[in-house]
Amino acid sequence: MSSGNELKAKFLEFPYVSVPHRDLMVDLVSSVESRAGSSLQPCTLPHEVQHFSNSTASSRGSLHIRTGTSSSQIDFMLGAWIHCKLPSGGALNITSLSAYLRPSTDAPHFLMELIQSSPTSLVLILDLTPRKDLIAYPDYLKTYYEDPQLDKHRQRLQMLPQVSPYFSPSLYIRAVVSPTAIMVSIDMGESESASIEGIIQDHISPIAKELLEFWLDKCAFLEKSVGDLEKVSLAKRDGIIKNKTIEIDLASSFPRLFGQEVANRVLDVLKGYYNA
Amino acid sequence: MSSGNELKAKFLEFPYVSVPHRDLMVDLVSSVESRAGSSLQPCTLPHEVQHFSNSTASSRGSLHIRTGTSSSQIDFMLGAWIHCKLPSGGALNITSLSAYLRPSTDAPHFLMELIQSSPTSLVLILDLTPRKDLIAYPDYLKTYYEDPQLDKHRQRLQMLPQVSPYFSPSLYIRAVVSPTAIMVSIDMGESESASIEGIIQDHISPIAKELLEFWLDKCAFLEKSVGDLEKVSLAKRDGIIKNKTIEIDLASSFPRLFGQEVANRVLDVLKGYYNA
Repeated sequence: MSSGNELKAKFLEFPYVSVPHRDLMVDLVSSVESRAGSSLQPCTLPHEVQHFSNSTASSRGSLHIRTGTSSSQIDFMLGAWIHCKLPSGGALNITSLSAYLRPSTDAPHFLMELIQSSPTSLVLILDLTPRKDLIAYPDYLKTYYEDPQLDKHRQRLQMLPQVSPYFSPSLYIRAVVSPTAIMVSIDMGESESASIEGIIQDHISPIAKELLEFWLDKCAFLEKSVGDLEKVSLAKRDGIIKNKTIEIDLASSFPRLFGQEVANRVLDVLKGYYNA
Repeated sequence: MSSGNELKAKFLEFPYVSVPHRDLMVDLVSSVESRAGSSLQPCTLPHEVQHFSNSTASSRGSLHIRTGTSSSQIDFMLGAWIHCKLPSGGALNITSLSAYLRPSTDAPHFLMELIQSSPTSLVLILDLTPRKDLIAYPDYLKTYYEDPQLDKHRQRLQMLPQVSPYFSPSLYIRAVVSPTAIMVSIDMGESESASIEGIIQDHISPIAKELLEFWLDKCAFLEKSVGDLEKVSLAKRDGIIKNKTIEIDLASSFPRLFGQEVANRVLDVLKGYYNA
């Protein structure tokens, strides 16, 4: 049986994606872990949930979850990768990093997902997810999105000719993200001079790192004073977000990709974290 | 001095826009007025606010407002057009129709704006503006946006090669609209076979009419039972939306376009409706 360190090293291999893609994911996970350091508990996922595959091993996945210590504002961080061979001969590769905060702060959650379904196309979702209704709380919009000019990242990326806005088929996903969310699809077409790897390295990496820095500095580790009533309403709204994430992001695709038994095993454990 | 009917006829002339653009605006205003009929009071705006211009008459504008009777769910409807000669020789033409509901219902407001700053380009904003946080109230998202498949309109329009997503520079505007909002910019480029007028007639008109029909059927005239506490929170959120609309949409541009004196005169009257 593998030790915790070996399982973590295996997660950090991100074995099916390109070098710049892997470097980015490792960098982001390490940034959270080195910064949050003592305020995160070790990953205690069962081994068969840290790494899993379907019966033919054509689909493989890995999860890495660390919950915050009781005094931390971080609820938990979740890193994941999924690799699925496609009947067409290609493969679907998804890597993600999300980090949820507790109701002791109202600061946004962090969310990044890279979905690559062919060597020449990629969908990127990168956002600080608001915890409050931005209309009823205009100061929240100002503090976390307007004043720090978060939209500049989206604008920068949008200038690349290969980049176009991505509209999620889920209206819930469109509604839950912030107005500065980066939701783009990147299509290299027949381009020979540029590659997805180059776009990740030169454009996505610096933006994702900068946004994560901002989140660590101004969201996760900035102490906030939140009233008791507000905590209750934050917890309720967060609960809806987490349940919807399981429902939309995972529950619909996992059984298809990994078979019902493996999907149930993984989802049951995940639900424990999301509903805790 | 002109009578109310003459002033209204002058508003409905939409004298500076193309025939299909005018036909669409007249059709939409008439649809609301004929359907809402007896539940709307006559327009009682001062004459000099129904029609106004700057000192050189290079900028002209017209407003038409009707408030709902006391038993109506409609707060007020506002039709408007603005025409400004540009130093470049061209002109800016904006036409809009918005309709706000009262806190006796939580159904969405209606919003349409057409902004044409050159003969070959147009920005369209068309939406049913949510009255509640769509995350905290998932049933609201389902009832007004998912179940009636409102996204199909955006998808249809997005298929045209001249149409691309429009990102408002205001994060508030991006946050206030629904996930099915049509916010697009239409650019005809050098096309000789197609025109903005053709796009308005063949594509924008049918969509705008269908969305307004839906709003009239399922929002403005469907009785809802809203609790007293909820009414208070709807009124508060609506108040923020209305104040922001004045602030972002009008207060920043009106003095520039019409001079401070005319801008103050018009805005003071408008504020009375928006804050009522």
